[in-house]
Amino acid sequence: MNDIKTLIVEPGAKVHLEQFDPAYTGEPGQEIAHADRAPALESVKARIGALQRKMYGDNAHSLLIVLQGLDAAGKDGVCWHVISGMDPQGCRVQGFKAPTAVEAAHDFLWRIHPHAPAKGEVAVFNRSHYEDVLVTRVHKLVPRKVWERRYDLINEWERLLHIENGTTILKFCLVVSKEEQLKRFAERLEDPDRQWKISDSDYREREFFDDYLAAFNEALERTSTPHAPWFTIPCDHKWFRNLAVAGIIADTLDALHLEYPEPTVDLDRIRREYHAAQSKENAGGKG
Amino acid sequence: MNDIKTLIVEPGAKVHLEQFDPAYTGEPGQEIAHADRAPALESVKARIGALQRKMYGDNAHSLLIVLQGLDAAGKDGVCWHVISGMDPQGCRVQGFKAPTAVEAAHDFLWRIHPHAPAKGEVAVFNRSHYEDVLVTRVHKLVPRKVWERRYDLINEWERLLHIENGTTILKFCLVVSKEEQLKRFAERLEDPDRQWKISDSDYREREFFDDYLAAFNEALERTSTPHAPWFTIPCDHKWFRNLAVAGIIADTLDALHLEYPEPTVDLDRIRREYHAAQSKENAGGKG
Repeated sequence: MNDIKTLIVEPGAKVHLEQFDPAYTGEPGQEIAHADRAPALESVKARIGALQRKMYGDNAHSLLIVLQGLDAAGKDGVCWHVISGMDPQGCRVQGFKAPTAVEAAHDFLWRIHPHAPAKGEVAVFNRSHYEDVLVTRVHKLVPRKVWERRYDLINEWERLLHIENGTTILKFCLVVSKEEQLKRFAERLEDPDRQWKISDSDYREREFFDDYLAAFNEALERTSTPHAPWFTIPCDHKWFRNLAVAGIIADTLDALHLEYPEPTVDLDRIRREYHAAQSKENAGGKG
Repeated sequence: MNDIKTLIVEPGAKVHLEQFDPAYTGEPGQEIAHADRAPALESVKARIGALQRKMYGDNAHSLLIVLQGLDAAGKDGVCWHVISGMDPQGCRVQGFKAPTAVEAAHDFLWRIHPHAPAKGEVAVFNRSHYEDVLVTRVHKLVPRKVWERRYDLINEWERLLHIENGTTILKFCLVVSKEEQLKRFAERLEDPDRQWKISDSDYREREFFDDYLAAFNEALERTSTPHAPWFTIPCDHKWFRNLAVAGIIADTLDALHLEYPEPTVDLDRIRREYHAAQSKENAGGKG
């Protein structure tokens, strides 16, 4: 699988999610056999962990991962099954819910900016500033002229992160079919461990399924850039969703050519001090 | 191993870390065979992951894990080998370095408080407010009368978190022997992937080894409380350190008797709506 090339939204390209196949599992002949899927994911997660720890040491780049998508496509699942391969030191997941009164009294990026990753860090946004051109648009929470201008504002803000702080931004649009979404809601309804997650809005949002696709189409078309590309992830098969997201993260980190930084101290002098201390302590131990 | 009972600092007990055995690996006859250590850790991590995800759903309790200890004892190692068992959604690691000028212009808990865990969350402090009675005391950064009164201030603040927000606090003092510490510094010196971590102060802090033990002794004696106990963790053997910390976290989460919350919606009504939608969509699909 070469998921980066297959699933990326090329900057400037038109997007038609209504024609997208959420059940896609790779090019013909490249499917992964059922028995190999778990080991394949573990192996990519190990790569991610090693690369992320190197980025933390390197302290020059940072990574922002944006998770958006249709309800039940699996934003939480990606956190648990993919992001868990990272060292929790240097990686943080930030969820964004409906804005509080204080947040809503500011521009829409005001509550987002403090969670941008520092150099060396990975930040994962479970929902994000894109809600302000998605749910906000679908439910007409602000006039069209307000959300219309936000695409440019988002591009400018993401450019700031990239230019000023070496941040690469990966944006995943998780797409599930309407049938699979209903199946997942129904399963959740009968699972005692997950019933608490159900809200009245889950079901009602389904009425806006096509409106969300249209809102995603425009968001992806207008905000996929070379340093902050969108990827459309087919999510009807969870194993493929996880492998695709993991593979794109690993390949992106690889392409940064990360290196551990040079030591800031005179290693030879410290070696001499260590050996002197060792001799002294050994002598002391025997005395 | 029953690490909670063996390693806890009972509230009010005297602490003598200078007599503590950092090479301890369990009671006689209870040692874990070399071949079983990795599977044992994986199994405890799986318990931790399941319990933490339940706490996230339960949304009534929270957990604050404080990692302190002697240099090279393994605070970073615990993050990577133990905390990585948690779902990154709902768990965050916060490191604390030397205070900035702005932070130093406030009380010592001012920069700490914003990182306390929300209900449902786990926060891990890699170093913490305890630095203000440890390094601050050893290097005489403030007068004795200032750090002396901080033990009570810490207890009062931790009590606030516990009473107001259902936070359980686990504090781990990672103890390594002076010999093993020197060995680890020497290994790091020859490891190209870790040389960048070496600072001049690593070596110089060794001169204050005994002063740190004395500072820890008093901190542990004066701030181990029923809702925020200290544990002394023997760290000369990394496998034991990881298993002990993981076991204490898992047993603590177990004791909270976490439950997924009741659904907030009328499940039967939603079931009816789902089935109606399914029928309608099936009919539509065939039309």
